[in-house]
Amino acid sequence: MEFTQDIFAEQMKPITGSAIRQIFHLLAKPGMISFAGGNPSADALDVETVAELAQEALSTKGKAILQYGATEGWAPLRESIAEFVKTAGIETSPAEILPVHGSSQAFDLLLKAVINPGDTILAESPTFLGALQAMRIYGANIVSLPMDENGVIPEAAEEAIKKHHPKMMYIIPTFQNPTGVTLSLERRKAMAELANKYGVILAEDDPYRDLRYSGDPLPAIKSFDTDGWVVYMTSFSKLIAPGMRVGAAIANPTLLRKIVIGKQSADTHTTALTQAIVDLYIRKGLLMPHIERINKAYKRQLDAMLDGFKYFPENVTHTVPQGGLFVWASLPEGANALELFERAVENNVAFVPGTHFYADGGNLNTFRLNFSNSPVDVIETGMKKLGGLI
Amino acid sequence: MEFTQDIFAEQMKPITGSAIRQIFHLLAKPGMISFAGGNPSADALDVETVAELAQEALSTKGKAILQYGATEGWAPLRESIAEFVKTAGIETSPAEILPVHGSSQAFDLLLKAVINPGDTILAESPTFLGALQAMRIYGANIVSLPMDENGVIPEAAEEAIKKHHPKMMYIIPTFQNPTGVTLSLERRKAMAELANKYGVILAEDDPYRDLRYSGDPLPAIKSFDTDGWVVYMTSFSKLIAPGMRVGAAIANPTLLRKIVIGKQSADTHTTALTQAIVDLYIRKGLLMPHIERINKAYKRQLDAMLDGFKYFPENVTHTVPQGGLFVWASLPEGANALELFERAVENNVAFVPGTHFYADGGNLNTFRLNFSNSPVDVIETGMKKLGGLI
Repeated sequence: MEFTQDIFAEQMKPITGSAIRQIFHLLAKPGMISFAGGNPSADALDVETVAELAQEALSTKGKAILQYGATEGWAPLRESIAEFVKTAGIETSPAEILPVHGSSQAFDLLLKAVINPGDTILAESPTFLGALQAMRIYGANIVSLPMDENGVIPEAAEEAIKKHHPKMMYIIPTFQNPTGVTLSLERRKAMAELANKYGVILAEDDPYRDLRYSGDPLPAIKSFDTDGWVVYMTSFSKLIAPGMRVGAAIANPTLLRKIVIGKQSADTHTTALTQAIVDLYIRKGLLMPHIERINKAYKRQLDAMLDGFKYFPENVTHTVPQGGLFVWASLPEGANALELFERAVENNVAFVPGTHFYADGGNLNTFRLNFSNSPVDVIETGMKKLGGLI
Repeated sequence: MEFTQDIFAEQMKPITGSAIRQIFHLLAKPGMISFAGGNPSADALDVETVAELAQEALSTKGKAILQYGATEGWAPLRESIAEFVKTAGIETSPAEILPVHGSSQAFDLLLKAVINPGDTILAESPTFLGALQAMRIYGANIVSLPMDENGVIPEAAEEAIKKHHPKMMYIIPTFQNPTGVTLSLERRKAMAELANKYGVILAEDDPYRDLRYSGDPLPAIKSFDTDGWVVYMTSFSKLIAPGMRVGAAIANPTLLRKIVIGKQSADTHTTALTQAIVDLYIRKGLLMPHIERINKAYKRQLDAMLDGFKYFPENVTHTVPQGGLFVWASLPEGANALELFERAVENNVAFVPGTHFYADGGNLNTFRLNFSNSPVDVIETGMKKLGGLI
């Protein structure tokens, strides 16, 4: 019998893959200036230190690293992460921490633990593409929450909770992907309160937190959690190296146990060698100086991009992030960033049209620009080119 | 509001975790002889070679290894795996191969791509615990297939297909976990035929294939696939190191694409460093000599375990595997291996009661013995002790 797509699960049938990963195919064109991805700069990837730590880990604990490990994670890393998240105001213990293959996996396992098809999730609008795809695969009903320059609006969230009875809220509080916007302190408290008041899981996805180039750091929403409704998800992809696939979920022990059970049959445990490397990075005090170093370079790149808007018509608005990897821009209402995208790619500049980040599509005038993966001079050239095309 | 387990997804509510992982807690007792796990021997884990290959990979391709990679996997590894599976009679191309975090992830992503709650999966009875848990999490209806000393019985499978209209069959054809039984050549052909005739996905889980200590290797079921209904799942956990979490799925391009989409939001891609290490292991011709070396030691351990049955009453039957990690034993009908397990643990010997490997429980007289993780003299001591307790 010929193989047929009829065999696919209902939720998977309409899902055709990440729009960004399609755009990546266009980027192979020589001479392309890409503001499209979300990759760390190649300079931010410290191969030498990773190689040294890999040797140290294998020479001191090689047999344990190569053997089956606990699904709950590499014990020293759980300790290190408990220390690491103190800077986000989170007081926790290794028993509440699960190392995972990137924060995407934290969210995937959380969805697996909690979501039945048809359950509602409230999400910032726009939001991270990968999260939209993950929620769709689990058959969630995604309800959009409005944002302004201080992030998601708690009053609107409360109204949506009352109306839609969601099981979960998905929030990227710091230097949000795609907008670069940061949730204010008052709103962080308010969102934690809503989660605990109404019994809604708040998935706090916070991979950009430490990429701050100006302004003061804010405590995580999780730091205001009272009854264990906030799940904190962090990642070392942007801080050390995405290829290592190490992140973590922090959740109350009852919920974490269910997430662990999902992980047992999903992939048994997180790769031990890369867990051990991240542990040593933190434990030996190498991580914070490394972050300071890469933040200096990223600040110059962000500044170059913000400066580059001088080449844009004045009716193009944009966010002014204090960190992260992205700037969000809007053409005047009625203009079409998909059409701009096609002309831009022909002229060797790429970005991601903003419509892809909306659960309900639309918003054709918006687009996302990444600055971390291009040197300052290339950013200037690219912004000039792009401005000329608008 | 106090956190409540009511929030969990329906499928997850009854799932309390792997029975084996609970048993592991008992094994911490000093002096315990464990036939319970499925771990490779510590001697089989070649730390030095892994460390050398890690350095080579990082020094030659460090920036690519640390950056985001393709969900489809590390390109050189896809090529190496295409070569590797030729020894199983599988002619494929890198485009049909997806490196994953162990063969457990291959199965999890396959389930995600295909299974709606209530769909039927036919599985050997008994079968791998982790697979039972994965199928339950996706809400599958598991229907047991009978086996004999040549593996699953195709006539019974055909009858079950006609009766239950399954979407999938799950088969471990070589040195099956838990029984150690190998599916005969004729039956491999017959199972491939059934999958293609009726349009049922056959998930062929084959992580033990190369751990053969006697007899001739058999081609994979996948080698007899005609229309792309067989998905081959392999793993380097038992051949190189489980802590690296590298395995692969091989499937027709349409199905593989859907599996890739599931992986995009599950964990973006497989850890690149360990993919690169496995690639170099294969590419430099180190894998086959390594397997020959570890097989020699495992053969002695298997022989010691089989010999140890001389200490058991004659009415205890057992399989005589030609490879793998496990021997399967049965007490006389009516006897209870759960009760034996308790007495055995008190006396510092552990195994896994067989009932856990049955989708429908029962079969209380059966139990699984692992030989790979104990030296020959310990195996003899343990078998003598266990025999005395029966």
